[in-house]
Amino acid sequence: MSLVGLGVVVWLAKDVISRDPGNERMQEISSMVQEGARAFLKREYTWVSIFVVVIFILISIVGVVKPDLGLGWQTAVAFAFGAIMSAIAGYIGMSIATRANCRTAQAAATGHKEGGKEGGLKKALGVAVSGGAVMGMSVSGLALLGCVVVYYLTGKMVANPEDYVSRMIITNGYAMGASLMALFARSGGGIFTKGADMGADLVGKVEAGIPEDDPRNPAVIADNVGDNVGDVAGLGADLFESYVESVIASMAIAASIVLYATTTGAEAPLFLLSIPFGIAAVGMVGSILGVFYVKKFGSSNPQSALMMGTYVAGIVAIILTAVIVAVYGNSWTNTMGQTYTKWAPFWVNVIGVVSGMVVGFISEYYTSSKFKPVKKLAENSQSGPAITVTDGLAVGMDSTAIPVIVLALAILLSYWLAGFYGVALAALGMLATTGMVVSVDAYGPIADNAGGIAEMAELDPHVREITDNLDSVGNTTAAIGKGFAIGSAAFAALGLVSAFLVSAKIDEAHVSLINVNVIAGLLIGGMLPYFFSAKLFRAVSNAAYKMIEEVRRQFKEIPGLMEGKAKPDSARCVSISTQGAIQGMLLPGLIAILVPPVIGFTLGAPALAGLLIGTLISGLMLGIFAANSGGAMDNAKKYIEEGHFGGKGSATHKAAVVGDTVGDPLKDTVGPSINILIKLMAVISLVLAPLFT
Amino acid sequence: MSLVGLGVVVWLAKDVISRDPGNERMQEISSMVQEGARAFLKREYTWVSIFVVVIFILISIVGVVKPDLGLGWQTAVAFAFGAIMSAIAGYIGMSIATRANCRTAQAAATGHKEGGKEGGLKKALGVAVSGGAVMGMSVSGLALLGCVVVYYLTGKMVANPEDYVSRMIITNGYAMGASLMALFARSGGGIFTKGADMGADLVGKVEAGIPEDDPRNPAVIADNVGDNVGDVAGLGADLFESYVESVIASMAIAASIVLYATTTGAEAPLFLLSIPFGIAAVGMVGSILGVFYVKKFGSSNPQSALMMGTYVAGIVAIILTAVIVAVYGNSWTNTMGQTYTKWAPFWVNVIGVVSGMVVGFISEYYTSSKFKPVKKLAENSQSGPAITVTDGLAVGMDSTAIPVIVLALAILLSYWLAGFYGVALAALGMLATTGMVVSVDAYGPIADNAGGIAEMAELDPHVREITDNLDSVGNTTAAIGKGFAIGSAAFAALGLVSAFLVSAKIDEAHVSLINVNVIAGLLIGGMLPYFFSAKLFRAVSNAAYKMIEEVRRQFKEIPGLMEGKAKPDSARCVSISTQGAIQGMLLPGLIAILVPPVIGFTLGAPALAGLLIGTLISGLMLGIFAANSGGAMDNAKKYIEEGHFGGKGSATHKAAVVGDTVGDPLKDTVGPSINILIKLMAVISLVLAPLFT
Repeated sequence: MSLVGLGVVVWLAKDVISRDPGNERMQEISSMVQEGARAFLKREYTWVSIFVVVIFILISIVGVVKPDLGLGWQTAVAFAFGAIMSAIAGYIGMSIATRANCRTAQAAATGHKEGGKEGGLKKALGVAVSGGAVMGMSVSGLALLGCVVVYYLTGKMVANPEDYVSRMIITNGYAMGASLMALFARSGGGIFTKGADMGADLVGKVEAGIPEDDPRNPAVIADNVGDNVGDVAGLGADLFESYVESVIASMAIAASIVLYATTTGAEAPLFLLSIPFGIAAVGMVGSILGVFYVKKFGSSNPQSALMMGTYVAGIVAIILTAVIVAVYGNSWTNTMGQTYTKWAPFWVNVIGVVSGMVVGFISEYYTSSKFKPVKKLAENSQSGPAITVTDGLAVGMDSTAIPVIVLALAILLSYWLAGFYGVALAALGMLATTGMVVSVDAYGPIADNAGGIAEMAELDPHVREITDNLDSVGNTTAAIGKGFAIGSAAFAALGLVSAFLVSAKIDEAHVSLINVNVIAGLLIGGMLPYFFSAKLFRAVSNAAYKMIEEVRRQFKEIPGLMEGKAKPDSARCVSISTQGAIQGMLLPGLIAILVPPVIGFTLGAPALAGLLIGTLISGLMLGIFAANSGGAMDNAKKYIEEGHFGGKGSATHKAAVVGDTVGDPLKDTVGPSINILIKLMAVISLVLAPLFT
Repeated sequence: MSLVGLGVVVWLAKDVISRDPGNERMQEISSMVQEGARAFLKREYTWVSIFVVVIFILISIVGVVKPDLGLGWQTAVAFAFGAIMSAIAGYIGMSIATRANCRTAQAAATGHKEGGKEGGLKKALGVAVSGGAVMGMSVSGLALLGCVVVYYLTGKMVANPEDYVSRMIITNGYAMGASLMALFARSGGGIFTKGADMGADLVGKVEAGIPEDDPRNPAVIADNVGDNVGDVAGLGADLFESYVESVIASMAIAASIVLYATTTGAEAPLFLLSIPFGIAAVGMVGSILGVFYVKKFGSSNPQSALMMGTYVAGIVAIILTAVIVAVYGNSWTNTMGQTYTKWAPFWVNVIGVVSGMVVGFISEYYTSSKFKPVKKLAENSQSGPAITVTDGLAVGMDSTAIPVIVLALAILLSYWLAGFYGVALAALGMLATTGMVVSVDAYGPIADNAGGIAEMAELDPHVREITDNLDSVGNTTAAIGKGFAIGSAAFAALGLVSAFLVSAKIDEAHVSLINVNVIAGLLIGGMLPYFFSAKLFRAVSNAAYKMIEEVRRQFKEIPGLMEGKAKPDSARCVSISTQGAIQGMLLPGLIAILVPPVIGFTLGAPALAGLLIGTLISGLMLGIFAANSGGAMDNAKKYIEEGHFGGKGSATHKAAVVGDTVGDPLKDTVGPSINILIKLMAVISLVLAPLFT
């Protein structure tokens, strides 16, 4: 199925490239964005490979020094492979996304000539969706392919291929590689995109009073590059990771159940190891059908087509999961002696999908201008920027309540139905249709970029209208996707932590809240998301600050720039953002990588378990809060721009712009990066678990 | 010792009242503030008494229905008594504080005539410190007196006076009463003070362009009332609670150790029950000496006198604690069979004091304009309000790291030295000198109010200068005090949670991180501080919004107001703030009170333990973040007002004012209220523990 998915990628990529890339100016802009994105990825990947090499060597050394732990060069290879597969997915997705932008704009232009707004929308949507789906299907196709290959090869690497626990010690490495790549892609991409965005807006819109995406603004290309590296490549790496981890967490728990059954002499429930692959495979089928549904029916009503496509993917996946469970499933007994029914994996899958959707819809409720919270926020913006920000933060804080209660219930239910295996499988249920979710999400920035190109190439204003329309449709589905990402991250992390507890062979009583080491771990873990976020915030504002200085300098020093007679030095702005992002991502990355082993070696495995749970608890809240605060302030601004409470240019609008600018790094840098902090720390602990037993 | 403390209160109160209250206008303003504060307290106490009566009845019913649990009218009476004692302390403190304000202004005026600035400072400081110390010594005197009385009477109430566990079930009620009062005092006071402050500033300073505390601004009296109800009465009730809880948590744990010793036939370590009272008593001695030190040496250098007074109090308390331990202490064995040395209580006391100070100093580092973070924040304000707020939030997030690591280490050390008894005792170590800490903290708002009166009564500008000077000295010590409050709250809450675990007789393995109910509890608990803060934020912005409307209305409708020919309707503004505060505090209060029993009854005691720890972890971070973000943005604004980066009136200053306004509810409403949420939920669980065994 993963090869079918990759076949679809090739077909869609050809579809995109075959389209008309537009006039020379459009191609020029598009290739500037392409080059900027490529240059950034190159530097990012260089830094990641340094980390990969160091960690590779360290894990290999462990294998030499303590060969009996099962950790060694095999895990190191799987680790490197995970990082490489994720990087390839990101590279493919971004290469096509940065080619789809001018083609989407051009499709909107020619479509509009042929069939008016309707025609423009139809044609443009086709290109943008294909572009997004290349990212989506690359992520799920490559992630699953890698998983299958690694797991298959572990059978050849260990002495006894039926020693599934040892096989998982190697396979876990693959997830860790994906996670490391995701961390740098998300934090680096997030810093890049928001540093450039804030820099471009603060000087361009606020100081110089020129419109968004104005070609005279030197930071506009960097801003467009940012959309690609943050919202396309960053998002892809994030979901690549979650997807792999949800597969691997369920398999790691399954492996320990199988081992337990073997030691007690009972029949080994090997199907528990097959079911996660089965669910992933049928999720791929669902995603492919979902993408084709959108491409087929998206022309008449894009909004409903995107939503329906997501539903189609989910429903197909659920139905086929029932088939998988019916064919492979059976009842089993876990390591604590509890027995579960044959259909339990199916039901937890449903719980995962439903709770993921509920969390998504709640995000939508708190961040969309269709509902009360954002309307009220826009209204309160009349009292000035301070009240706007205060209220925006309050909306984000409010929005944590229902998702967390839903997640807690979903965790309780999945646990009751199928133990910790069920918790991990619920995460996989959410993530099985990752291909579709990423397709829909990556479509947004392509439409956004197309709008930027239309503006810069001074195309007919109708084109911009069409791309804006596509962009706003994407925002709704993106909000739901973000909710999905956060919910599934929490689930996947919990699955990883349980796998860690099982792998490190920690006794129940040792990870009790009465153990003061656990408490210390919880406290320090709870603090990390804040410290990590602070570093990201700083990195964004430093990058924005440097960008502001540079744009101001260019406006002052390049004669004729403001009059549109001279061209800005866009490349320099891109390189400033790149540097800011690379510098900014290193410290947070080091924190995420180093803290788990440090705590594990000094305070022991129970404290490390506490650390992971502390980071999960505190990070989940901070993540939801950050994402929804930012989303609400963004959409309140857009709502005002639609003409409410004074509209564009009013004092209310100015207040809302301040809110939006505060919200931007919250929702696009801090929020998504925290997800990865949680998951990366958990997967590192899982990989290193043999060291702490 | 508590009676000696109350004797000092009488002496200091007389000292304040005997001073010259100034001219007629000053007395008029002071009595308006007095009346407003009294009216608010009256309504607040009315609402609290409704809650008290309902809870009183419920606990009494439990006693009738399940008489064997030990819960009943006795606990209910102790509970009501705790709330009443805290209310009395708040009332006394505020009555004197609202009388000390005009007298401080007058002292500054007459002192300045006699001896210039030096003379003014000297005289004014004497009055302000006496006023603050009335609050400080009332809090510690009444809190300790109540504790002693309740504990003594429990000896008469239970069948067997040597059944200390049953006696503690009653005594715990006293802490819960103090906690309930604190919740409403902090959240109600916090909403009142920030609603009024934001309302006054946004219309007065920003829209109408009149200075702070201008008599034409109708909201100024409400603002001054707010300083008293929030920063004097609210703070007093907060530390009243922490103080009582640290005593009671250590005693509850001690009682279970004594019970365990009795059942195993070993000698009962009764001294563990005496030591907390001993430490509290010597803390009182330290506080009294500290206050007198400030009154004696404060004249020449107020800043160093306040700091030195705090040190004197701490050092005296530590030395006398050594004496207490030497006389009463002995080695003992806890319920888990671990044996601790005689001097352990002394060392954990030292750990508590030292870690409290470190946490305080870190707060100071991140929030004072003497250090890099605030200077940098002020510098970055040059890029506009959005960057100011973003950076301000980042400073707050950064500031969580060291305090949390220090707390984690302090918890580990105290636990290693003396088990959970040691953790509770470390909290008491921090809080033994509560009398001094509150004195220093309550002094600030008095100086602040005196400045307001000087402005409104149009006194000589020198007077305002002197009061500003006193106020800014107070800010430093207040920042340290806030750090203390947060650190001690975390410690006290952890002590309460351990007491709860012991009282609910929960097995180690049941509160393990492998128990999914514990995980669900942790998740929901982690969410509560956000939800709670959102409600408080909303309440503040609603109150501010109504205040803005009212001030705008008065400026428009009262002829001659802006020209200074007519008087504003200040009483109406006070009543708007009162109403906003009362309405706003009810929902958060209900959440804090209802969630623990709901979770305890539905998901069981282990989930409840998870809930408490989840709230502690997430709330501690959010609390430190909120307090320090707000503090940093406040002081960055002040730093700019001192003439840096353009000074008052510049664009940088305007950006900093937005930051300060966002920071205000963070630092004065949300931050301190979360402490109480954590503690109240823990103490409710402790009181209800017999229901969950």
